[in-house]
Amino acid sequence: MKLWQKDKEVSKSVEQFTVGHDRELDLFLAAADVLGSLAHTKMLASINLLEESDLVLIQKELKVIYRDIEAGKFSIEDGVEDVHSQVELLLTQRIGEAGKKIHSGRSRNDQVLVDLKLFFRSEIKHLTDNIEVLFKQLINQSEEHKDKLLPGYTHLQIAMPSSFGLWFGAYAESLADDMELLLAAWKICNKNPLGSAAGYGSSFPLNRTMTTELLGFDSLNYNVVYAQMGRGKTERIIAQAMSSVAATLAKLAMDACLFINQNFGFISFPDELTTGSSIMPHKKNPDVFELIRSRCNKIQALPTEIAMMTVNLPSGYHRDLQLLKENLFPAFLSLNECLEMTAYMLQNIRIKEDILKDPKYAYLFSVEAVNEEVLKGMPFREAYKKIGAEIERGEFKAPASVRHTHEGSVGNLCNHEISSAFQNTLSAFNFKKVEDALNSLVSG
Amino acid sequence: MKLWQKDKEVSKSVEQFTVGHDRELDLFLAAADVLGSLAHTKMLASINLLEESDLVLIQKELKVIYRDIEAGKFSIEDGVEDVHSQVELLLTQRIGEAGKKIHSGRSRNDQVLVDLKLFFRSEIKHLTDNIEVLFKQLINQSEEHKDKLLPGYTHLQIAMPSSFGLWFGAYAESLADDMELLLAAWKICNKNPLGSAAGYGSSFPLNRTMTTELLGFDSLNYNVVYAQMGRGKTERIIAQAMSSVAATLAKLAMDACLFINQNFGFISFPDELTTGSSIMPHKKNPDVFELIRSRCNKIQALPTEIAMMTVNLPSGYHRDLQLLKENLFPAFLSLNECLEMTAYMLQNIRIKEDILKDPKYAYLFSVEAVNEEVLKGMPFREAYKKIGAEIERGEFKAPASVRHTHEGSVGNLCNHEISSAFQNTLSAFNFKKVEDALNSLVSG
Amino acid sequence: MKLWQKDKEVSKSVEQFTVGHDRELDLFLAAADVLGSLAHTKMLASINLLEESDLVLIQKELKVIYRDIEAGKFSIEDGVEDVHSQVELLLTQRIGEAGKKIHSGRSRNDQVLVDLKLFFRSEIKHLTDNIEVLFKQLINQSEEHKDKLLPGYTHLQIAMPSSFGLWFGAYAESLADDMELLLAAWKICNKNPLGSAAGYGSSFPLNRTMTTELLGFDSLNYNVVYAQMGRGKTERIIAQAMSSVAATLAKLAMDACLFINQNFGFISFPDELTTGSSIMPHKKNPDVFELIRSRCNKIQALPTEIAMMTVNLPSGYHRDLQLLKENLFPAFLSLNECLEMTAYMLQNIRIKEDILKDPKYAYLFSVEAVNEEVLKGMPFREAYKKIGAEIERGEFKAPASVRHTHEGSVGNLCNHEISSAFQNTLSAFNFKKVEDALNSLVSG
Amino acid sequence: MKLWQKDKEVSKSVEQFTVGHDRELDLFLAAADVLGSLAHTKMLASINLLEESDLVLIQKELKVIYRDIEAGKFSIEDGVEDVHSQVELLLTQRIGEAGKKIHSGRSRNDQVLVDLKLFFRSEIKHLTDNIEVLFKQLINQSEEHKDKLLPGYTHLQIAMPSSFGLWFGAYAESLADDMELLLAAWKICNKNPLGSAAGYGSSFPLNRTMTTELLGFDSLNYNVVYAQMGRGKTERIIAQAMSSVAATLAKLAMDACLFINQNFGFISFPDELTTGSSIMPHKKNPDVFELIRSRCNKIQALPTEIAMMTVNLPSGYHRDLQLLKENLFPAFLSLNECLEMTAYMLQNIRIKEDILKDPKYAYLFSVEAVNEEVLKGMPFREAYKKIGAEIERGEFKAPASVRHTHEGSVGNLCNHEISSAFQNTLSAFNFKKVEDALNSLVSG
Repeated sequence: MKLWQKDKEVSKSVEQFTVGHDRELDLFLAAADVLGSLAHTKMLASINLLEESDLVLIQKELKVIYRDIEAGKFSIEDGVEDVHSQVELLLTQRIGEAGKKIHSGRSRNDQVLVDLKLFFRSEIKHLTDNIEVLFKQLINQSEEHKDKLLPGYTHLQIAMPSSFGLWFGAYAESLADDMELLLAAWKICNKNPLGSAAGYGSSFPLNRTMTTELLGFDSLNYNVVYAQMGRGKTERIIAQAMSSVAATLAKLAMDACLFINQNFGFISFPDELTTGSSIMPHKKNPDVFELIRSRCNKIQALPTEIAMMTVNLPSGYHRDLQLLKENLFPAFLSLNECLEMTAYMLQNIRIKEDILKDPKYAYLFSVEAVNEEVLKGMPFREAYKKIGAEIERGEFKAPASVRHTHEGSVGNLCNHEISSAFQNTLSAFNFKKVEDALNSLVSG
Repeated sequence: MKLWQKDKEVSKSVEQFTVGHDRELDLFLAAADVLGSLAHTKMLASINLLEESDLVLIQKELKVIYRDIEAGKFSIEDGVEDVHSQVELLLTQRIGEAGKKIHSGRSRNDQVLVDLKLFFRSEIKHLTDNIEVLFKQLINQSEEHKDKLLPGYTHLQIAMPSSFGLWFGAYAESLADDMELLLAAWKICNKNPLGSAAGYGSSFPLNRTMTTELLGFDSLNYNVVYAQMGRGKTERIIAQAMSSVAATLAKLAMDACLFINQNFGFISFPDELTTGSSIMPHKKNPDVFELIRSRCNKIQALPTEIAMMTVNLPSGYHRDLQLLKENLFPAFLSLNECLEMTAYMLQNIRIKEDILKDPKYAYLFSVEAVNEEVLKGMPFREAYKKIGAEIERGEFKAPASVRHTHEGSVGNLCNHEISSAFQNTLSAFNFKKVEDALNSLVSG
Repeated sequence: MKLWQKDKEVSKSVEQFTVGHDRELDLFLAAADVLGSLAHTKMLASINLLEESDLVLIQKELKVIYRDIEAGKFSIEDGVEDVHSQVELLLTQRIGEAGKKIHSGRSRNDQVLVDLKLFFRSEIKHLTDNIEVLFKQLINQSEEHKDKLLPGYTHLQIAMPSSFGLWFGAYAESLADDMELLLAAWKICNKNPLGSAAGYGSSFPLNRTMTTELLGFDSLNYNVVYAQMGRGKTERIIAQAMSSVAATLAKLAMDACLFINQNFGFISFPDELTTGSSIMPHKKNPDVFELIRSRCNKIQALPTEIAMMTVNLPSGYHRDLQLLKENLFPAFLSLNECLEMTAYMLQNIRIKEDILKDPKYAYLFSVEAVNEEVLKGMPFREAYKKIGAEIERGEFKAPASVRHTHEGSVGNLCNHEISSAFQNTLSAFNFKKVEDALNSLVSG
Repeated sequence: MKLWQKDKEVSKSVEQFTVGHDRELDLFLAAADVLGSLAHTKMLASINLLEESDLVLIQKELKVIYRDIEAGKFSIEDGVEDVHSQVELLLTQRIGEAGKKIHSGRSRNDQVLVDLKLFFRSEIKHLTDNIEVLFKQLINQSEEHKDKLLPGYTHLQIAMPSSFGLWFGAYAESLADDMELLLAAWKICNKNPLGSAAGYGSSFPLNRTMTTELLGFDSLNYNVVYAQMGRGKTERIIAQAMSSVAATLAKLAMDACLFINQNFGFISFPDELTTGSSIMPHKKNPDVFELIRSRCNKIQALPTEIAMMTVNLPSGYHRDLQLLKENLFPAFLSLNECLEMTAYMLQNIRIKEDILKDPKYAYLFSVEAVNEEVLKGMPFREAYKKIGAEIERGEFKAPASVRHTHEGSVGNLCNHEISSAFQNTLSAFNFKKVEDALNSLVSG
């Protein structure tokens, strides 16, 4: 069943090739598709394009379908092209002719656009939930381990003293910044394309402001040509925001793989979180972090993939855009799993004590020694040369301890300030408004 | 002259290879470097790491250097490694020993970090200025040409009536969304890394909050390890925001190249804005749009390039990051030129009248015809079939005109609402606060 | 069942996360895995690490499994980690202890390396088969339509006369060049990594030359560290070769979408190969070409994805590499389908006659007119100006016909030479040698 | 001066924008441009489109210009658009009207195509020269250090014994495989596009086979539409081949940065090849390797950049292609420098002796211990468990030495075979044929 059937049957191989993976991927859009139809039909009735009696039938049955979807009892039948057709088919089977009227005043183009936006909103929400969990855990671990020192490296060379407080806290603050990009993606996503039809609007007197409010959108994609142009663009921007989170996780995973390595040996994990080798009986491998790194690096290539598939397409819809679902949908799942696994692994981390007591780390304190001279009155450049010469002669002695007091340093992590910044960004999403709107759409 | 001279001379080829293009690229950072030193030295004095008399000398001379930079009278001498060294050298030549004290309490790592942030802020400002000009022009042209109809295409097939009002307006609204990403980049950029030293902080009691205020930053990169982690990340995020603007311009350019093509022939440009061929005397080529498209597509690859250069680097500074200047700095220049040239070309655009009178565009109105039947009472699916059959029989007659009234349609462009959205985002940058801070830093 | 079981059970969530999609993807490797074991065990027996009686049992049963795989009767059971474990499990269930001996002298690392190489070889073969079909069809259509003229565009502006003979032939020649990259990928792929164990070789006196011959490889990845380094590299190089083929198909698809567009109207397709619109009854959309374009552009991003996942990993195996299967395996399927659909669509293409009779194409002949003057004795620059002036005055008259005679021009397509070049490259693969080796391995 | 001047002057800003960096970049093409003209004019004379007397004048003066270019005495004057115009201008200034005749029978499109191909050929030659030097050095160092053992890592965990012989040799073999891709790029590049004019051929009876031979090309890009399609494609393929070499160098550099790190400490370099820190007097940083890594990773993004700039352009020339020079030309320089610096650094490497004597590396030998049990008759899986249990109980004792004998292992590096493979590929370029052709073109 297709929404555009003609007299002549389409060639079997063309049909298979064009449907592609839509039947599986469209399942992700089913709830959103029903939400869109709930709002659209209310609006159609308000402008007298749908009779009240039909509206009542449609709303009631759409809510049944919505609950079935939520309960996992929805599928796209063989021979049905996509989720829009399946919903319309169910509706028509159950309430007759009235079911056919839900497509008035829209095209599949704006229908899928609004489905995608609604789905993306819920996925962005899902990501922020997982990010918040990991963020809080990182802050907690930063506080818990703030006194455990760690060598700090620059150029991967021993540089200056760092701490596990700094290490955990740095990744928390990185996530706080990543949230800014997710917020931008959310804002671009949270605008209503419904009513743009095939990208050139409709001769019906649609009330797009009404569907905007019903669906809890902040605003409209006003210009109907732009509404269509948002396809691909929205995906790319969300992928960019995801790639920023992914870059944070991948770097953390790279650090973890390095710190677990026996030459570093700063951290370890219980046996049940590592894997073995088929030939080397001594191996305890950090596969989880390697796979987080790899998955996240794959996500970092996602914006390129989307760009490559959309570059140089003139304005107006192109079927090319359909395939973007294949890239983005699995990436949401993958990034969420990576967030969860990172949190899970870090909960079980074991940190080596007294790392810096190893004499090979003595040079970490060379700047402390220089600064001590400066505080005693020696110009910096001279102090630098004095300590450098001591090191060359093998006479350098490391100061006993680290006393950093300024904002963000070993002794003053500012985790409270970082948490505030995170919460500020989080509250700007205003998820409550969206939830309230959707709840009132599906209730009753 | 280097800030880290040792006893042994570094090999000539190593020196050349490591300096690379820094002498040219660092010129872009010169003003920022002086601003950073003005703030840093004030702070040093406030915590008694610099005597008041030295501070006076330093501030006075730094402002002289700043004015020289603004006047284009600054260069990096042969044998001087980078901009930081050059500024310190000039200062020491002019005010003696005091000049050497400006490096206390920082490393080149946080010095270049703050330089980059200040430079990026001014470049983001520069971009928004050019975007605003183009945005306003697009809105004006949308209003001016709102009655000129244009075929709308989907699948690059004649679809439904569009208009130049919609076409110009769509790109304006696209820029409005792009501004959200630039704003996110701005927010991530507008945090102070100074005081993070080599990425592990300092044993001096630095007052980072003070330099944050002096430099007009909104906040700090608190965690010193994260401050360093921001290198590469900030660049990638700015590149992503730029790639969004670039994608808008490239799509407009693609449309323009198509519309200038003789088979479309919707727009044209005066001869002096097109180019000719060395063998075909009739050619009037749209090279400017082709080059805008190409440059902007190149910018769309920039985030990948940055990601590829930073992926899988563990935390802590790596020299790899130095090269990111080579990617990003020319991209600012290029994108600004593309914004300017797009505006310049569009100012001179000539639009063909009465395009839709050509009979080949009659089918554009098939949906209007379907909708008319629906408004008369026929169910949508039936009306669709009726008109489809008329078309097959060659009996279809197009309705006389387009009457679209809903939000964002041909007859109701909502350019006012789009402009409001643009201005809202623009005002969130709060450029004024930054300007005021910097002005007070260099004045006197 | 895992090949590396330890005392402690691995956490359930770690197990799920690390296994990922391996059970599905490893099915593609099953035949290759058995081939590898057939060769490896023969070699083990030859160096007395396997008794002759065990060898006989193992070879017999592996061939049974191989035939089951070929017949689609093989699957990886729940709880079995990967294809290697499944094969070993089946073998042990059927022939007892002897089954456990097939892993001696290798690691999963070189086992999967050789599986991948064997699988990639068969996929490259599959691609070349489909490319050859399309190539021949393009050459045939080039010959068939060589007299049908077409406007040639530069800058998407009407430029000079072209022909369908040139158009089809150009894509044939493009595929001929793409084959050079596939051949390079084949050569890099066609070297034996077996015997490199975990990437550091083995203390057993393995005979790697023997397995090289048994498996029909051209040569060895000699250095065992390099053999492991080939993982990721081989995938990237194959992806690059595929991206070249994909670029050819995508460009052809872009041309097709443009030529089908009503403003061009050079080609069309029967209704059953186009799709319709849910609201526009007149639409006949070229979805197949749009999807070919989009899929092929996705493949063009594949090398970046692989690079992003492997950049900056130090030498030695990393679990990150496991995920490359997810990128590459579906891409083989997709590219093969695109090759098939391109051939299928082109078989049904309808070409408009007498396109150039439309007066808007008259300027195509301006260079012909210039050249005629040159042949009469006027210097080129003067003739160019003369014809340019005629065009400006609206007095230009197009010559009656096109007489291009040089190699590769409208009148002399050189399709024979292009076909020879294609066949030369094709024969360099020497697929026969590989087939013979594998046949002798599985027969008996 | 332009080759296509019209009556109306082109706008200044359009001129600046379209010329871009061509004046600088075209200098790289100057020698190639003259070579192309030398061959083209000989061919023109042979088909009577150029008089013998003019040919003599032109050939003589072009050779003068060629020698000036070789001597660095050639530049593109202000106001001259590109290298083709500059050469034609010089010629006309010196020999009068005859100089204007060199453009007959070609367009700037095929002129720049042939220039690029000739330039790329010389750059590929340059790269192979540098690769050969590095290859030989790696082989030599592999032999020299073959007895120095090194820990081998998998998952960055201590795995099995490796050696510097394997480490150097692996990168040599990697370069040998990279040469296959360079060879494919060379073959695709080494075909003559001259005579394709603007991409649609010419009505002159050009003898393209003659110019093919004169310029030492192996063959033609026959189809004139394909000849033009090769622009962008050739660049992408060369970039892919370069990215393979770059990936090899970047991985070597990553290893080097890790091995120099104090936690590993396997290798070191003299002070004059490392750099210091502005605040840490003890630092000896491996900047050269970090910059090689970063530059090479940038080159790995180059194919994406080129693809992004060429994706979805329909067939026929577009001005977009002009910008590809900006990406590729500096990349040749950069990759050559990286090859030279890698060789230079490795010449000065210092390798730590007796690394494996450190008890933390004992587990490297666990597989040796397992294999010893197997050779004594214990089944592999049982031996694996026995040694695993010994390790758990802390009772494992490492075998005294490593005796690997199979092809490509610690004890049998097969460097001779790897060198043969390298030389085989190198000889397939047949640079001699090209050099002979070009020498005979410019001599006399």
